[in-house]
Amino acid sequence: MSLAEQKLIGKLAMLYVLDESHQSKVGELGWLHCTGKVGSMESNKVVAAIETAAKKNQVINGEVYRETHALYHAIMEALHGVTRGQVQLGTVLRTVGLRFAIVRGQPYEQPEEGEWIAVALYGTIGAPVKGLEHEAIGLGINHI
Amino acid sequence: MSLAEQKLIGKLAMLYVLDESHQSKVGELGWLHCTGKVGSMESNKVVAAIETAAKKNQVINGEVYRETHALYHAIMEALHGVTRGQVQLGTVLRTVGLRFAIVRGQPYEQPEEGEWIAVALYGTIGAPVKGLEHEAIGLGINHI
Amino acid sequence: MSLAEQKLIGKLAMLYVLDESHQSKVGELGWLHCTGKVGSMESNKVVAAIETAAKKNQVINGEVYRETHALYHAIMEALHGVTRGQVQLGTVLRTVGLRFAIVRGQPYEQPEEGEWIAVALYGTIGAPVKGLEHEAIGLGINHI
Amino acid sequence: MSLAEQKLIGKLAMLYVLDESHQSKVGELGWLHCTGKVGSMESNKVVAAIETAAKKNQVINGEVYRETHALYHAIMEALHGVTRGQVQLGTVLRTVGLRFAIVRGQPYEQPEEGEWIAVALYGTIGAPVKGLEHEAIGLGINHI
Amino acid sequence: MSLAEQKLIGKLAMLYVLDESHQSKVGELGWLHCTGKVGSMESNKVVAAIETAAKKNQVINGEVYRETHALYHAIMEALHGVTRGQVQLGTVLRTVGLRFAIVRGQPYEQPEEGEWIAVALYGTIGAPVKGLEHEAIGLGINHI
Amino acid sequence: MSLAEQKLIGKLAMLYVLDESHQSKVGELGWLHCTGKVGSMESNKVVAAIETAAKKNQVINGEVYRETHALYHAIMEALHGVTRGQVQLGTVLRTVGLRFAIVRGQPYEQPEEGEWIAVALYGTIGAPVKGLEHEAIGLGINHI
Repeated sequence: MSLAEQKLIGKLAMLYVLDESHQSKVGELGWLHCTGKVGSMESNKVVAAIETAAKKNQVINGEVYRETHALYHAIMEALHGVTRGQVQLGTVLRTVGLRFAIVRGQPYEQPEEGEWIAVALYGTIGAPVKGLEHEAIGLGINHI
Repeated sequence: MSLAEQKLIGKLAMLYVLDESHQSKVGELGWLHCTGKVGSMESNKVVAAIETAAKKNQVINGEVYRETHALYHAIMEALHGVTRGQVQLGTVLRTVGLRFAIVRGQPYEQPEEGEWIAVALYGTIGAPVKGLEHEAIGLGINHI
Repeated sequence: MSLAEQKLIGKLAMLYVLDESHQSKVGELGWLHCTGKVGSMESNKVVAAIETAAKKNQVINGEVYRETHALYHAIMEALHGVTRGQVQLGTVLRTVGLRFAIVRGQPYEQPEEGEWIAVALYGTIGAPVKGLEHEAIGLGINHI
Repeated sequence: MSLAEQKLIGKLAMLYVLDESHQSKVGELGWLHCTGKVGSMESNKVVAAIETAAKKNQVINGEVYRETHALYHAIMEALHGVTRGQVQLGTVLRTVGLRFAIVRGQPYEQPEEGEWIAVALYGTIGAPVKGLEHEAIGLGINHI
Repeated sequence: MSLAEQKLIGKLAMLYVLDESHQSKVGELGWLHCTGKVGSMESNKVVAAIETAAKKNQVINGEVYRETHALYHAIMEALHGVTRGQVQLGTVLRTVGLRFAIVRGQPYEQPEEGEWIAVALYGTIGAPVKGLEHEAIGLGINHI
Repeated sequence: MSLAEQKLIGKLAMLYVLDESHQSKVGELGWLHCTGKVGSMESNKVVAAIETAAKKNQVINGEVYRETHALYHAIMEALHGVTRGQVQLGTVLRTVGLRFAIVRGQPYEQPEEGEWIAVALYGTIGAPVKGLEHEAIGLGINHI
């Protein structure tokens, strides 16, 4: 049950969201993945955008609840990194502009560890006024 | 008050902690920075390791409380990303092995925005048994 | 100040919400109680439904703030069990379908411990799509 | 992906922890399960007791991290119900005396939903003085 | 159920902890009260110091759990104001030096609203190094 | 880096919000300050009212993000004291009526500690029905 050095799913997802050229590394592993953008003051819209992208790009099977459940918790964990305290945006008068990358693969050497999913977020958070913002990052990882 | 494209302090700090070769980009900007490692079940030791590195490497002036205060909150925010819910380690029976990068610089185009500090964390979190762990990431940013 | 074995208000409220046949046990103790259902993505509507049922069924006296205050905190505590981290529903894109039971009685052997109120919740939580959900439970107890 | 009426894993786990006679219902389904007790002011000891029981009774395979990971998050979610706000015991001067039940089975009608794990907690929480306590309940559910 | 203008228990408790000369106003109302000091990195010691003072000065009856329960939640709420996010001190490498005031009285005009308890905290929070700290305040109010 | 006895910015801001006659003490120090009122079930409106007052009264320069950022975090910290657990109002069916005071000055003896900002809140929190409420207090302090 050790993480394989070349298969660090969290690091790969974070590099991918920071710089799209890293997509090729994820692709070489034969892993499922997708990326997208969302900007909103409504935290539910951020969750919805990531879920929709994952389903549309078949990174998860939206017909199977256990896949949706795994992804949902990975998203919520990534949002903790972005929001740092309360998973709230508009209700505390702030907005985000985020890129996201979703990666699904086998990061462990042992085949019985199976598949895991990583959600990486990068962008800005701040007041609903252009420029009044700083960067934010989040990563959520779950077994799927 | 716009973030300058080449001076994205959060992205630079995260790339730096993920891959030490990015140190040169931070150095070219003439920004203060340092990096280090800490592994512990005690969350206070993680905070202490980062604070000590920042002071020892003169990224902050430990004699000035406002600098310590700015760094402390950046560390706490980064720990939110790593712990995703409760800023606790051993008290909820988990441990971390983290690399950290601290970067201090001027990410905004306007000089009046002054200096900001970013704390980036990358490593693993999990049960206190080798291998029972997955990756975790956190980023905290504050004005200093 | 010991809990009386036959008067475990939390256990009774939980059994009552899981299986309405347990209502008789609560009734035999001569305790005030009511039950109801609420399904919503809006957490405030869940709170309102429970408060309204408690007042309408005279489990609490809505004219006395200390009773409303006691109930409110019991509801919030029960919601912690259901939401497990952030007391949020629609804002994090999830919905609940809950049954609730409210019980008011004297669970302690000593008469000076007076009345306490228990709010038990049982149902499902999940995505706003039928079937994409799992069960959730919460219990809040307060002196009244 | 609907929950099967006779296989409500959360309800079964909660009834099991409230009244051991419900063990037979879990057994009839052919599901893995175990029960145990733990009393402590140290939250990490509560986590450890539940994890140890699950491994010792082979409800999970302790050699496979994804199983430990699934269980860990189910425990943490159940502790949210018990602690209602901060997953802390001794550090906020309170202690628990808990029974726990762990159940692993297939609650959904569709076979592709696979196995899920439920952790149910029931007992008392209060000051570290006998009698200064009330009941508490928690339930955590995760895919495994 | 209106708060009586001259009996604002929260305001009185806060003024009392900020300036001991306000003790006379509390005394004139015939209300129970006490004050004290506590400095610690251990959050449980802060809770214990306040509970002990309340019992020793007979602001609450330590033999009755409902009074301990009411006080405990008022303390925890006051600590939220002091800690602002995680009710943790030493585990996140910070310490407090606090004065506290506990006031018990009838703040509402209607006699059926009965007694309430307020816990006011004032002092400093910061790194475990003298001077690396700023002020912090908290107030908790509960029915008793 | 010691707090100067006559320049306790948190205490001054709290006294100021509790009793407007304390405004003169803040004025004598030559510090920037303002006060205002806000009542709402929407937490974002509370944040907006405080930010708007600070900008309109030139306590902060709304054109400089670092000042907005410092104020925002001070407001959020003050709201933790008022909300005591979840920074939510209407979504958990409660409302506030608050006075606020914002003070900006140099509370430390050493000039290199520079300016700090304090946000003090005092008022009531409760159900959206007149009278069903108790007092609440919050204080947030940040370097600016």
